[in-house]
Amino acid sequence: MSKVSEEQIAQWDLIDPLADKRQLFKLPEKGVYLDGNSLGPMPFSAAERAKEVLERQWANDLITSWNKHSWIDLPTTVGEKIAPLIGAGPGQVICCDSTSINLFKVLSSALSLQPSRSVVLSLAGNFPTDLYMVEGVASLLGEDACHLNLVSEDGLEDALTSEVAVLMLTQVDFRSGRLLDMQRITQKAHEQGILVIWDLAHSAGALPVRLDDCEVDFAVGCGYKYLNGGPGAPAFVYVATHLQSRVTQPLKGWMGHKQPFAFSQSYAQSQSITQFLCGTPSVVSMSVLDAALTVFNDVDMQQVREKSEALGELFIALVEEEEKLADLKLESPKAPQARGSQLAFSHEHAHGICQALIDKGVIADFRAPNILRFGLTPLYLRYQDIQDSVQTLTHIMEQKIYLQAQFNVHHKVT
Amino acid sequence: MSKVSEEQIAQWDLIDPLADKRQLFKLPEKGVYLDGNSLGPMPFSAAERAKEVLERQWANDLITSWNKHSWIDLPTTVGEKIAPLIGAGPGQVICCDSTSINLFKVLSSALSLQPSRSVVLSLAGNFPTDLYMVEGVASLLGEDACHLNLVSEDGLEDALTSEVAVLMLTQVDFRSGRLLDMQRITQKAHEQGILVIWDLAHSAGALPVRLDDCEVDFAVGCGYKYLNGGPGAPAFVYVATHLQSRVTQPLKGWMGHKQPFAFSQSYAQSQSITQFLCGTPSVVSMSVLDAALTVFNDVDMQQVREKSEALGELFIALVEEEEKLADLKLESPKAPQARGSQLAFSHEHAHGICQALIDKGVIADFRAPNILRFGLTPLYLRYQDIQDSVQTLTHIMEQKIYLQAQFNVHHKVT
Repeated sequence: MSKVSEEQIAQWDLIDPLADKRQLFKLPEKGVYLDGNSLGPMPFSAAERAKEVLERQWANDLITSWNKHSWIDLPTTVGEKIAPLIGAGPGQVICCDSTSINLFKVLSSALSLQPSRSVVLSLAGNFPTDLYMVEGVASLLGEDACHLNLVSEDGLEDALTSEVAVLMLTQVDFRSGRLLDMQRITQKAHEQGILVIWDLAHSAGALPVRLDDCEVDFAVGCGYKYLNGGPGAPAFVYVATHLQSRVTQPLKGWMGHKQPFAFSQSYAQSQSITQFLCGTPSVVSMSVLDAALTVFNDVDMQQVREKSEALGELFIALVEEEEKLADLKLESPKAPQARGSQLAFSHEHAHGICQALIDKGVIADFRAPNILRFGLTPLYLRYQDIQDSVQTLTHIMEQKIYLQAQFNVHHKVT
Repeated sequence: MSKVSEEQIAQWDLIDPLADKRQLFKLPEKGVYLDGNSLGPMPFSAAERAKEVLERQWANDLITSWNKHSWIDLPTTVGEKIAPLIGAGPGQVICCDSTSINLFKVLSSALSLQPSRSVVLSLAGNFPTDLYMVEGVASLLGEDACHLNLVSEDGLEDALTSEVAVLMLTQVDFRSGRLLDMQRITQKAHEQGILVIWDLAHSAGALPVRLDDCEVDFAVGCGYKYLNGGPGAPAFVYVATHLQSRVTQPLKGWMGHKQPFAFSQSYAQSQSITQFLCGTPSVVSMSVLDAALTVFNDVDMQQVREKSEALGELFIALVEEEEKLADLKLESPKAPQARGSQLAFSHEHAHGICQALIDKGVIADFRAPNILRFGLTPLYLRYQDIQDSVQTLTHIMEQKIYLQAQFNVHHKVT
């Protein structure tokens, strides 16, 4: 890419088809928020809905709101709003619990379908909680029935053998942003009779996902990153229609019963996606997520993807053309189609650089031991923001401000 | 009780030591809310906190709020606020997930401690989701390792044998309000080497619970009933200190790791109550519950209990002295010390009576086939409210209004 001019950047913002989405979010008045891959910023609709749910629905209509304001339908309503963002037809996505707990449900379900196989295959670099949940299932079923096998990405396809029961992958790597080929991998796994679970934590709302087209079996994902559902927002789970009546998930709470309000003594599971519910839905948090999802109304995920790639390409180009940034090493794939919606750079002073950036209003994040992570979120970031961020970064590197920055490690929910 | 005078009722309200708590709640301007055992009404503090969490913490401080506003500590903070209400010393209660999911954690934990025993003993009338969760654990461990045995209350003590691994009981019956003797039953179970799980759904915040004194092993409970935490508020779990490092709960999410932010590949459980966390906490809902709990500041649960009993005695006396209510049969224990904080009456037209009451602003609830349920919540109900409710009930019975009432079954979260 030849040197990018300020005029060119201004022009890109001018013709950006997603430009008017930015006004739907509350953003810092100064600075740039590049951590939407960790916690999406607040859509104004979210605050309005929280007020509505507390001060009108709960306060005034009390228990009658379960029907009057359709609280009871929220898991389905929200699930159906997420479905088109991840390429799922109706009746396959429901909102509930946390990503970890939803993984437990689908892992157990998948393993129960092929009791003669015991291996759960994943990548060594997968997000830790995903791996821990396999350990959790194994602690109940025993190692003979559930055994975690971790391989490197290079070894993945060779490891797809007929001993593998379940392949569990995160589509976009939480550190590097590396994007896996869902279609190819799912197909290769199916050829060996392996069921596939995709974790969409860093892809739902970030790029077009095609669960149905790829014939994915199960998926889970997170409400608080690119879906902007608020801190700790409920998660979601996808189960392909043809599997819903064949599996039984083990967290048999009353909301998964085919007749929750019959209060019958024994469990009779719903034959639909509602089987994947467990306890009472978290109405306040789920309503906030429901409202936040309205920012995706009439959004074409292909446009989101194009802008995401363009923001990434601009970021990389600006870094590459700046000599003072020569020590930053791109840890994300170089090809835009091989990345999700974030960029990672390594630097021995990544820790201090990150704090210096935050001090100057550019909210990025740090991942041990030496990774700077920048989330690129097309609904509210401008090309101008990328330029401003790289300028700030350049200033920090030039002045070596990172040597002074006191890093206040903050616990972050990736 | 001799006929109760209006003057007497007014006098009780006048000297009520809890009278000033009522102003902390948003209550219907007309009518009486007798469904706080299903969904507590909104404390004003809850709405204020929701606004704070969305419009200031999330909106302005974004990801830095995990530290700046101590989001990461919420499960512990809220757990420690609930602890004194249920007689638990520090470090034993944590707020997370739903009651059902917390039951799954403690059931699995308890069963793992005595693998030679397989029976989970409970009462046939226990809340269905509690029983379903045992089925769920059994579906993973196998019937040889987890087998549900249901008995009637009369047969409970005889069923406490050395084959029983776990006794799982709800302290207050969700239909009748019957209160079990936690101390006696826990002791009897322990004499047979049985671990005990108490579900406090209808007791936490309703009456003094003495988990530590009774040497209870595990307990779970609900945030949205007597704790007024809002619809679908997160639940809580109690694990006695001496068991925390001896058990491993199987929902091994990253928040239960001893170093969640080390992102290590394998799970190393926390040795404290935080082991019972799983995924990312639901910050908005949990903050609302945290704020709602401030209404219990400086509340003496013994005073709550005394007023609860007095409200119940008044309700029963007013029903008994009214001939027109002779067909209502008390289904709760007659002795106040044998009840929780609710009353149940049966009537063949309970369905229509409940709807007629709701139409006239007295929010009670109905449980199939013929139960009217009245929640008595001392923090915001006046003695006058009980009188008004019984007067409305009398009017409905006298005029047979229940025959016309169109019952709109609403799904309710008990």
